[in-house]
Amino acid sequence: MNTTTPNPWTSPTSLHSPELLRRIDAYWRAANYLSVGQIYLRDNPLLREPLVLEHIKKMLLGHWGTTPGQNFIYAHLNRVIQAYDLDMIYLSGPGHGGPAVVANTYLEGTYSEVYPAVSQDVAGLKKLFTQFSFPGGISSHASPQVPGSIHEGGELGYSLSHAFGAVFDNPDLIAACVVGDGEAETGPLATAWHSNKFLNPITDGAVLPILHLNGYKISNPTVLARITHQELEQLLLGYGWTPIFVEGHNPEPMHEAMAAALDTAIAQIKTSQHQARYGVSTERPRWPMIVLKSPKGWTGPVEIDGLPNEGTFRAHQVPLSVSATAPPGHLAQLEAWLKSYRPQELFDKQGKLIPELAELAPTGNRRMGANPHANGGLLLQGLHLPDYADYAVSVPVPGVTMASDTFVVGQFLRDVVRLNNEPRNFRIFGPDETLSNRLEAVFEATNRQWNADMAENDQFLAPTGSVMEMLSEHQCEGWLEGYLLTGRHGLFNSYEAFVHIVDSMFNQHAKWLKTTLELPWRRTIASLNYLLTSTVWRQDHNGFTHQDPGFMDHVVNKKAGIVRVYLPPDANCLLSVMDHCLRSRHYVNVVVAGKHPAPQWLSMEAARTHCAEGIGIWAWASNDEGTEPDAVMACCGDVPTLETLAAVTILRQHLPELKIRVVNVVDLLKLEQHTEHPHGLTDADYDALFTQDKPVIFAFHGYPWLVHRLTYNRSNNVNMHVHGYREEGTITTAFDMTVLNEMDRFHLAMDVIDRLPQLGNRGAYLKQSLKDKLVEHKHYITTHGEDMPEIRNWAWAL
Amino acid sequence: MNTTTPNPWTSPTSLHSPELLRRIDAYWRAANYLSVGQIYLRDNPLLREPLVLEHIKKMLLGHWGTTPGQNFIYAHLNRVIQAYDLDMIYLSGPGHGGPAVVANTYLEGTYSEVYPAVSQDVAGLKKLFTQFSFPGGISSHASPQVPGSIHEGGELGYSLSHAFGAVFDNPDLIAACVVGDGEAETGPLATAWHSNKFLNPITDGAVLPILHLNGYKISNPTVLARITHQELEQLLLGYGWTPIFVEGHNPEPMHEAMAAALDTAIAQIKTSQHQARYGVSTERPRWPMIVLKSPKGWTGPVEIDGLPNEGTFRAHQVPLSVSATAPPGHLAQLEAWLKSYRPQELFDKQGKLIPELAELAPTGNRRMGANPHANGGLLLQGLHLPDYADYAVSVPVPGVTMASDTFVVGQFLRDVVRLNNEPRNFRIFGPDETLSNRLEAVFEATNRQWNADMAENDQFLAPTGSVMEMLSEHQCEGWLEGYLLTGRHGLFNSYEAFVHIVDSMFNQHAKWLKTTLELPWRRTIASLNYLLTSTVWRQDHNGFTHQDPGFMDHVVNKKAGIVRVYLPPDANCLLSVMDHCLRSRHYVNVVVAGKHPAPQWLSMEAARTHCAEGIGIWAWASNDEGTEPDAVMACCGDVPTLETLAAVTILRQHLPELKIRVVNVVDLLKLEQHTEHPHGLTDADYDALFTQDKPVIFAFHGYPWLVHRLTYNRSNNVNMHVHGYREEGTITTAFDMTVLNEMDRFHLAMDVIDRLPQLGNRGAYLKQSLKDKLVEHKHYITTHGEDMPEIRNWAWAL
Repeated sequence: MNTTTPNPWTSPTSLHSPELLRRIDAYWRAANYLSVGQIYLRDNPLLREPLVLEHIKKMLLGHWGTTPGQNFIYAHLNRVIQAYDLDMIYLSGPGHGGPAVVANTYLEGTYSEVYPAVSQDVAGLKKLFTQFSFPGGISSHASPQVPGSIHEGGELGYSLSHAFGAVFDNPDLIAACVVGDGEAETGPLATAWHSNKFLNPITDGAVLPILHLNGYKISNPTVLARITHQELEQLLLGYGWTPIFVEGHNPEPMHEAMAAALDTAIAQIKTSQHQARYGVSTERPRWPMIVLKSPKGWTGPVEIDGLPNEGTFRAHQVPLSVSATAPPGHLAQLEAWLKSYRPQELFDKQGKLIPELAELAPTGNRRMGANPHANGGLLLQGLHLPDYADYAVSVPVPGVTMASDTFVVGQFLRDVVRLNNEPRNFRIFGPDETLSNRLEAVFEATNRQWNADMAENDQFLAPTGSVMEMLSEHQCEGWLEGYLLTGRHGLFNSYEAFVHIVDSMFNQHAKWLKTTLELPWRRTIASLNYLLTSTVWRQDHNGFTHQDPGFMDHVVNKKAGIVRVYLPPDANCLLSVMDHCLRSRHYVNVVVAGKHPAPQWLSMEAARTHCAEGIGIWAWASNDEGTEPDAVMACCGDVPTLETLAAVTILRQHLPELKIRVVNVVDLLKLEQHTEHPHGLTDADYDALFTQDKPVIFAFHGYPWLVHRLTYNRSNNVNMHVHGYREEGTITTAFDMTVLNEMDRFHLAMDVIDRLPQLGNRGAYLKQSLKDKLVEHKHYITTHGEDMPEIRNWAWAL
Repeated sequence: MNTTTPNPWTSPTSLHSPELLRRIDAYWRAANYLSVGQIYLRDNPLLREPLVLEHIKKMLLGHWGTTPGQNFIYAHLNRVIQAYDLDMIYLSGPGHGGPAVVANTYLEGTYSEVYPAVSQDVAGLKKLFTQFSFPGGISSHASPQVPGSIHEGGELGYSLSHAFGAVFDNPDLIAACVVGDGEAETGPLATAWHSNKFLNPITDGAVLPILHLNGYKISNPTVLARITHQELEQLLLGYGWTPIFVEGHNPEPMHEAMAAALDTAIAQIKTSQHQARYGVSTERPRWPMIVLKSPKGWTGPVEIDGLPNEGTFRAHQVPLSVSATAPPGHLAQLEAWLKSYRPQELFDKQGKLIPELAELAPTGNRRMGANPHANGGLLLQGLHLPDYADYAVSVPVPGVTMASDTFVVGQFLRDVVRLNNEPRNFRIFGPDETLSNRLEAVFEATNRQWNADMAENDQFLAPTGSVMEMLSEHQCEGWLEGYLLTGRHGLFNSYEAFVHIVDSMFNQHAKWLKTTLELPWRRTIASLNYLLTSTVWRQDHNGFTHQDPGFMDHVVNKKAGIVRVYLPPDANCLLSVMDHCLRSRHYVNVVVAGKHPAPQWLSMEAARTHCAEGIGIWAWASNDEGTEPDAVMACCGDVPTLETLAAVTILRQHLPELKIRVVNVVDLLKLEQHTEHPHGLTDADYDALFTQDKPVIFAFHGYPWLVHRLTYNRSNNVNMHVHGYREEGTITTAFDMTVLNEMDRFHLAMDVIDRLPQLGNRGAYLKQSLKDKLVEHKHYITTHGEDMPEIRNWAWAL
């Protein structure tokens, strides 16, 4: 950025006059006081009587280390919000900053608005303190219970990704993101700095990272605090940021430096935005960031029991033990520590922050605790969706038309992009796989957003676009989460195996969704939609390296109210499922679909009905005609459906007397008990499909045990025989992958024969010929390098 | 590093004379020729007859883009290995570099030694080409089948971590690690650069990263290729490396530049090691690295069908389609492309590389394909293990002694460190949680290895030590994998929930283990041992953010031959399990254990017997005395065991006529069928424990459905009632966590009563009093903030 450009945003220094800084210091002391109070006190909240053990909590829990630094940052952000009328949210990256965000949202008034019982008086203070890290109370994180939070922490590493997700398509928003120096060691955070190459200064807002270098993790120093100043500066410059350093210990100069740094940072942000938005520059801006180097546990006890505390790892959690068994001096030391903030100067007789300080906080929705972006459901607008039936594949007879399911849904998604171009509230995220996943139609409507250098032969790259691609599943997931949490819509498309990279991110998001459902003031947000393709059933050149369909297993362990799993068998079903997912709220929807050309089964009308039911008998493929079948052949997923129908063809051709019922499952959780999952079937409905006593040969896309886990307590459990992915694979043909895992048509048909001894010799004869076929297949592929023509050209023939 | 220090390693420039570089270029052409051959040819391998379609594979698969660059690197590394007699291994980070590593190990002779059928002649060449990306053949990665590989790729991001793991405690080894610029966008790779702060230049070897900036991923440009040279240099300097840039397209100057760069890099490495090892410097070295900027698909077709190819994303996979339906000019273009390498100058009449070129490769174990470090089982030495019984907790009666299980095993691990200090082949990895996980005893014997700046109050930090802690589970896992793959031993200790971060890394390692078992020339390596603690059952201040015991669910989907899961109920069992894990080979062992003081159940002798069986009846807690019980109460995990025994106490006290059998499970996979897992029980043995028809109330550490998934086909399945973690939690007491998930003693006892209608009114009366107790409990904790004394002071009382 050319900093000599005339800049309308340069602020007069009077904006941070010594008098103002003195009041900010008082505000900071108030927040620090409330933070220590939360960790220690259950009574006597303003120390209006001498502190005694009865005022102290029995279990002292929580984290002091990061808290005073975050209080410092929050107080200073309040100033610039007021000074420049900023639309700003706050993300607390370092993990256990709960006391700080609770204290600050309480001071600014939002906490009491959301939780009136925690009022701005002595009684409210007592409640505020007691509830912290107390059974049934609030945690040591910026949890969903904290107004203004969209980022809880817990597992570290995602604050910057969430911050970027929040500001995409929010041009007026600034996400102030405190990055912990411990957090900065994680992989996801280490690459998240590069998000600045994906931000558009015109159509997106800005992220202001504040790297909080307080030196220690739990018991180790942090890497970034123990490299040279020069290395740290080079690193951040190399990441494309302009770091502004604020370093020290003494509050007075630190207030001065922080105020100046923030004025500079805001000026740089506004200048870059101004230059981009008025065409002065098309360069990628070098966005500012702040490095705040302050002692861990700043303003806390300098020494405890002869050991240094402030500025060391020992300040990480509760620095000072205070109890009947702790050294007796500790109680007095705690009292002195609390009094060092001079609470009597900060709170009035009723226990409310004095007006001179209260007015330092912004008002209304400008308060970071009240900013509607941080309660995204408030801003959520439904997507404009085209009629998905318009994209239907024509299926005059089942199994003959070939189509790529994801290619078809790509056309629908293209028009979702188009129709929502105006609100700009829909984005597709993926790690450079959108084309490979056959969603290329979306590039008729939009581009991949990219703000690094461009070159002549680049394709579908532009400074602004609705597709976000970085080779980091962590970034894709984190960006999308930030985007959803601020009230927008999106889709993550990924190779099936690699989505395990975000297992633990999904986990945290699912927990966030569950918890926010229990908070009436939190509004529901759009669902997190996964489209998983490039599945385990193709290993043409990838060998046996990473294939794994187990994300479903991971997902179904989460709360039933939150998770949905769909395996549409063809393109028309995928269209119906995708439409449903994009309309849904507050779920995690996992959609597993194929990308290779594959037989199509259902007309649009049939698909609509089938998907609405989620599970059903395919009468056209069955010949039980309303009676009890001899066997049920069930299938879930596109490849299992093809192999099942091929098996049915073989069986009906050779054993026409056999009565087979075909059941197809789109909505996996239909298999679960209705008492366990809202989509679950009752036993009566389940039995009506699967019978009470007939063999069920179930071909499943994923690990077979997942079906067993869902159906273990069904009456027909003992007859359930599931074929699925059994961790077998190598470089081989598409069909041979099913053979290796015994989910192919021949093994399925043989299993039916095995379960029906009444077939006698005719069954045995057919079984032998199927075995011969398998030998012939093996020989053919190793000779020809491809599947036998009769397998490739197979079509539903009945 | 002070480069003016006299350096014994500076090489005369004659080491890379023009004549030598000309031969290296020829060697490179040979490798490129073999790479293109692998992708396209199934016959006519040396083009000794005109190329026709019958010589071309029917399915063209594989990846060309990264291959010529890696061939270039490999050829130049061969030179420095010879020139300086280096002990070097090669890691191929960019993913699909299979053709390059196969070609090079073939040229150096190791491939034919391992696979004699792929001989160094025309017939062998034909096999080499045909097998690539062919059904049953080899994949497009540096897969386990490739000699010299310890890093397959597949999912990207772990090459640098593996490289560092390989050189820890291998002072003479250099791991040359090609980092893809796509790979460099992943989080794990982005933080792996910081591994240099954890390397000791005296006791560890060196990593030489070669960032291969070839510009494109699948269809997008890469971030690092599209920032300014200055930014890239700052970034790498900021990471603490000294980058040496080699940029260009024209082979001749590129050979010159690469040779010079490698001479400089090797000299810097050797100088740093010399200075450190002879006490000249105690500074953290600034290790060298190379940035190789070369076109994607270098030397491939410049243009195909009018579109630029070399140097664009279009060169990523198979650049030129050649088939009966492809444009007819393509066949001739392929022939011209192949002939551009002038194979007739490179291979003799028999089809063998000419001696003038063959001698460029190192010989014997200096060949990177033959380096024993890359087949770590060759170098593996068993650990010296103390007698774990020496660390036993005295348990005169069950349930009275309190101990922290992990604290106890920490003492055993301390002495494992001590006893193996001489071979230096055991390390403990963890993300700053070793102390928190109560393994502090290990710090009596060693330190955390740290080579960044130190400060006065640091604890257990030293330039060398056996504990590796970085706040990145990815690094811990990647380092440990690299350490194990090169023939050493280790343990990863992690909070239970955060181990999901490495789900997909575990997945790839498990697949590697499975595949290597099928390769007779690959030797078995030490097991990958996880110690998971800080489990889901404590949420004192963490709220409901990330807790998840589902890593077990993920693990058990992998091949039964590879995975083991242990949940020792107390310290003595944990000692026995840990000893077993450290002796085992080629498994992934997951051990879940508690860290908080908890009741101890078994004497060392009893623990030894119990763990050897893996599952068993606790007769001392049961009163069925050899007869059929009324109910079985089973437990797996420390907290479930405590709650089960508390429930048994209640039931036996109030309903003494009730016959209860207590079954404890240490080895989770005992529950599975013996046909599915080698540890699995036969149905007869299973029924002998769990009965065929009595209710089983099973308290499980993890998600209850995992037990159902393992036991769905047992005869007594219908009576199996599993209590476990059901995704309920908040800030609360230890006991209340079990209440929220209905796994507490009261719910367990009530469930027994519910399953035994014969208990009639007496059961109903007890049930009501247990319900009352739960109400009393809730009231108590919200008033007192801690559990009722009778719960805290509970002891086994029968």
